[in-house]
Amino acid sequence: MKNKSISENTIRRLPRYLRKLDELISLGIICTTSRVLADLMGATASQIRQDLCCFGEFGLQGYGYDVKALRESIAHVLGMDKGHTAILVGVGNVGRALADNFCFSLCGVDLKCAFDTDEKKIGIGINGLEVRSMDTISEYLSKINIDIAVLCVPRNVAISTAALLIENSIEAIWNFTNIDLVKPHSDVIVENVHFSDSLMSLGYYMSSDTGR
Amino acid sequence: MKNKSISENTIRRLPRYLRKLDELISLGIICTTSRVLADLMGATASQIRQDLCCFGEFGLQGYGYDVKALRESIAHVLGMDKGHTAILVGVGNVGRALADNFCFSLCGVDLKCAFDTDEKKIGIGINGLEVRSMDTISEYLSKINIDIAVLCVPRNVAISTAALLIENSIEAIWNFTNIDLVKPHSDVIVENVHFSDSLMSLGYYMSSDTGR
Repeated sequence: MKNKSISENTIRRLPRYLRKLDELISLGIICTTSRVLADLMGATASQIRQDLCCFGEFGLQGYGYDVKALRESIAHVLGMDKGHTAILVGVGNVGRALADNFCFSLCGVDLKCAFDTDEKKIGIGINGLEVRSMDTISEYLSKINIDIAVLCVPRNVAISTAALLIENSIEAIWNFTNIDLVKPHSDVIVENVHFSDSLMSLGYYMSSDTGR
Repeated sequence: MKNKSISENTIRRLPRYLRKLDELISLGIICTTSRVLADLMGATASQIRQDLCCFGEFGLQGYGYDVKALRESIAHVLGMDKGHTAILVGVGNVGRALADNFCFSLCGVDLKCAFDTDEKKIGIGINGLEVRSMDTISEYLSKINIDIAVLCVPRNVAISTAALLIENSIEAIWNFTNIDLVKPHSDVIVENVHFSDSLMSLGYYMSSDTGR
């Protein structure tokens, strides 16, 4: 797999390819072309070919792409077959919304349990997910192999909680705290989710005459 | 302002510039350089200069950037001074999390009220925000000028609710339904927020040896 020099833009487009391929699969479509994918993605066929050739030779000249094989390859590139495990840290509104509505398993992630400091929340299940005391998180992480922490704690404890997670050898932080967690002096991987960035971009497209 | 050919990547970076400039302002820093901004942004100084020159001549050779002036110019490009108005459509967990925790006014957006179909939620305020009946949304939109609908309804009514909003002349939809709203045959601007895209990208960086 020649995925050494894939641009961040291509990576960011892959989950969308996956959704579009799932749509094709649900319609019973076995084979597709870069032109069809281009229409679905709102891109040009040449852009699609350029994106997909980063990952190897999926397409056959004059035949197109095998939809299921392409879907599997993209899922593999995204690490969805790696059996990643996760915990939810902080069960406020955002944490609860994720536990209730977000399907972690569709992203190949096994959400094991949640942690919170609020006594009233501990021991209660959210959508089948057990909530444990934050006091027990270090002990838990020393016993159970967890890759990803979904960080949904209040802003004022975001940095200290991230530090605690890193101390306990968490590999990656999916950060909903609206504080930029700059990559610390460790190998931890951080994905910051900033709702405001998205709303501000919308504001740009509303103000500019470019539309999109 | 020469903002005709700004790439989507540059647009997507602007909210982050804004956050970094706000940090500098809060530290009392009046003037900065592309090198300092590059460090804060995790980019090269030349990338910073390239980004910022899209919007005009902010920097002065040998002096650097006036932090407040640069912040104001970026906020203007992002339409934050346009007085955009918004309504929240759907007060489930995600809608409630946004109403409770997300500061719309920091993005230059005035969130006017919320709508839901659940009788128990109607009439109640969330964080000072009035919740109205979905039955009254068309009447409301015919009287009050609203630019943005924040769409947080369940997936199964996402498309029909979007259609209703477009019928009622909403200019833009900030879409949290996890369904891709493809740009309809209208001038409506859609910003889809997909949590799964973000988690899958994290999965990629965990699986690849590139780190970041």
